[in-house]
Amino acid sequence: MKTARMHFAIAILLLRIVNAAAQTDASTDPLPSWNDGAARQAIIAFVERVTKEGGPDFVPPRERIATFDNDGTLWAEQPAYFQALFAMDRVKALAPQHPEWKDQEPFKSVIAGDLKSVAAQGMKGLGQIVAVSHAGITADQFSTIAKEWLATARHPQSGRLYKSMVYQPMLELLDYLRANGFQTFIVSGGGIEFLRAFAEETYGIPPEQIIGSSIKSKYELRDGVPVIVKLPELNFVDDKEGKPIAINHYIGRRPLFAAGNSDGDLEMLQYTTIPRGSDDKTPRFGLIVHHTDSQREFAYDRDSRIGKLDKALDEAKSRGWTVVNMRQDWKKIYP
Amino acid sequence: MKTARMHFAIAILLLRIVNAAAQTDASTDPLPSWNDGAARQAIIAFVERVTKEGGPDFVPPRERIATFDNDGTLWAEQPAYFQALFAMDRVKALAPQHPEWKDQEPFKSVIAGDLKSVAAQGMKGLGQIVAVSHAGITADQFSTIAKEWLATARHPQSGRLYKSMVYQPMLELLDYLRANGFQTFIVSGGGIEFLRAFAEETYGIPPEQIIGSSIKSKYELRDGVPVIVKLPELNFVDDKEGKPIAINHYIGRRPLFAAGNSDGDLEMLQYTTIPRGSDDKTPRFGLIVHHTDSQREFAYDRDSRIGKLDKALDEAKSRGWTVVNMRQDWKKIYP
Repeated sequence: MKTARMHFAIAILLLRIVNAAAQTDASTDPLPSWNDGAARQAIIAFVERVTKEGGPDFVPPRERIATFDNDGTLWAEQPAYFQALFAMDRVKALAPQHPEWKDQEPFKSVIAGDLKSVAAQGMKGLGQIVAVSHAGITADQFSTIAKEWLATARHPQSGRLYKSMVYQPMLELLDYLRANGFQTFIVSGGGIEFLRAFAEETYGIPPEQIIGSSIKSKYELRDGVPVIVKLPELNFVDDKEGKPIAINHYIGRRPLFAAGNSDGDLEMLQYTTIPRGSDDKTPRFGLIVHHTDSQREFAYDRDSRIGKLDKALDEAKSRGWTVVNMRQDWKKIYP
Repeated sequence: MKTARMHFAIAILLLRIVNAAAQTDASTDPLPSWNDGAARQAIIAFVERVTKEGGPDFVPPRERIATFDNDGTLWAEQPAYFQALFAMDRVKALAPQHPEWKDQEPFKSVIAGDLKSVAAQGMKGLGQIVAVSHAGITADQFSTIAKEWLATARHPQSGRLYKSMVYQPMLELLDYLRANGFQTFIVSGGGIEFLRAFAEETYGIPPEQIIGSSIKSKYELRDGVPVIVKLPELNFVDDKEGKPIAINHYIGRRPLFAAGNSDGDLEMLQYTTIPRGSDDKTPRFGLIVHHTDSQREFAYDRDSRIGKLDKALDEAKSRGWTVVNMRQDWKKIYP
């Protein structure tokens, strides 16, 4: 055991040395798609501060937790959450097996592509759409269906695959944080199993670091083979006050860094950054992606139906959160 | 970016070289408290098989998920689950502030130390005890209270601190798996926040790798400071069929290795080890700790009220799970 531990300690030491070399290598820019403005400078200053060994604000790696919202923070969310578009497509794909849907709401409106009428049916209609598109199948079957959709379906405006509508500057930020010993988690209002269908390949975030909204499930042996069956019953909504609750529940540590883009992320940003008392001096970082680029992406905030950013934008000033102006701060949007 | 990636790749390579050196160092025994019997041999043969690069059964590190039950698998669970003893002690500590409890069940029986009568009150009584001992306080307050109890309370028979009643051979097994690239998770029927009060220090398992039963909670700002408040309402029972459900929900990957000690772990062992089809050839490991040592620990199985091991012991044979005979297989029990 002792020899194994010594070998391991040597390896860690070597890892630190080359990591340090990587960090001080002037030829590498960790955030090449970020313009050299206040946002980029604040991010780099913060990471250098909490990772400087022997410095007054050093934070050990195990405490370096970074939490990211997904819709509107890591990928686009207009004209509707991509998972909602997936659900609509799924209803359409299943429609031939359900001739009764053509006279039955909310399916009738979904099949007709009448999003306004679907939205008008509120939570009950949405629940029925989720039930037929996300439940009644096994977790493995759902994963396969979601992956197929993500590999083929295209955004109505950009014509791109949805998973290519991720933000290149945020991919670099995820990489930069991980290279500095952070664990990067997704804490999203989106569905946990939908996120897992692309997050590892797209963001480099493994399934055990994905937190999202969920429906209940059950375990059974089918012909002697274990399956997890997804049930048409809500389990948890990972939005607004749900986000700090989920961080406490799934991660069990307070984040050092949190990033969001809407009022749905307000409580996560508060939970991350507000000092717990006068002796709580650890620096924490709050980041808001502000959608200001109508040319290259979308421009929306206080009046948007999707991704409304109002209270959190006001609080950003008093709390010292960094607001990213997409139009000014980002050299490019998509990879 | 490229230079940083190259440095990182070099570091990983170095880590592999010294890890390989550690593994082939004949002078180190990774499981010194295990006698050289069938159980020890099966564990080592399995780990070598799935970690042998280029071998037919090689499993990449990200898929090396190991899940461990806690009560009766990593620490003792007799004469009652330690968390139940914590809850009783908490009721007694709070009793002076609640004079009405001396005439009110289940508190009256708890204060009198009459465990039989407490048990006779079933789930309703248990719910009331959990409500006053685990809820109505913040997550941080609960953590402090649990840590204080774990640092001072002693087992009624052994006189030891509870957190010193962990199994030395299992600590070595956790270390051995981690040294071979496994992520070790706890998947316990015990409370997720109670487990987190000692698991990192005791087992080296960080909070984000702890899964357990839970009650609901809410988020609020108290005098401007964020708190998570624990509510007297059940959220999830992480036992029996709850274990594979939780593994799918929290980890999102099927384990390669699972260890338990009771029928509460049966479904987790099935979910881990049963092949999903004729082309599913990945080796998987199921381990059952059989309590056979009345001298050094406790001996119980099919008829026990706590930690009943009956169906899972029968299934172990047909499924090829390794059953650890504590009396024969372990040189020592506690550290």
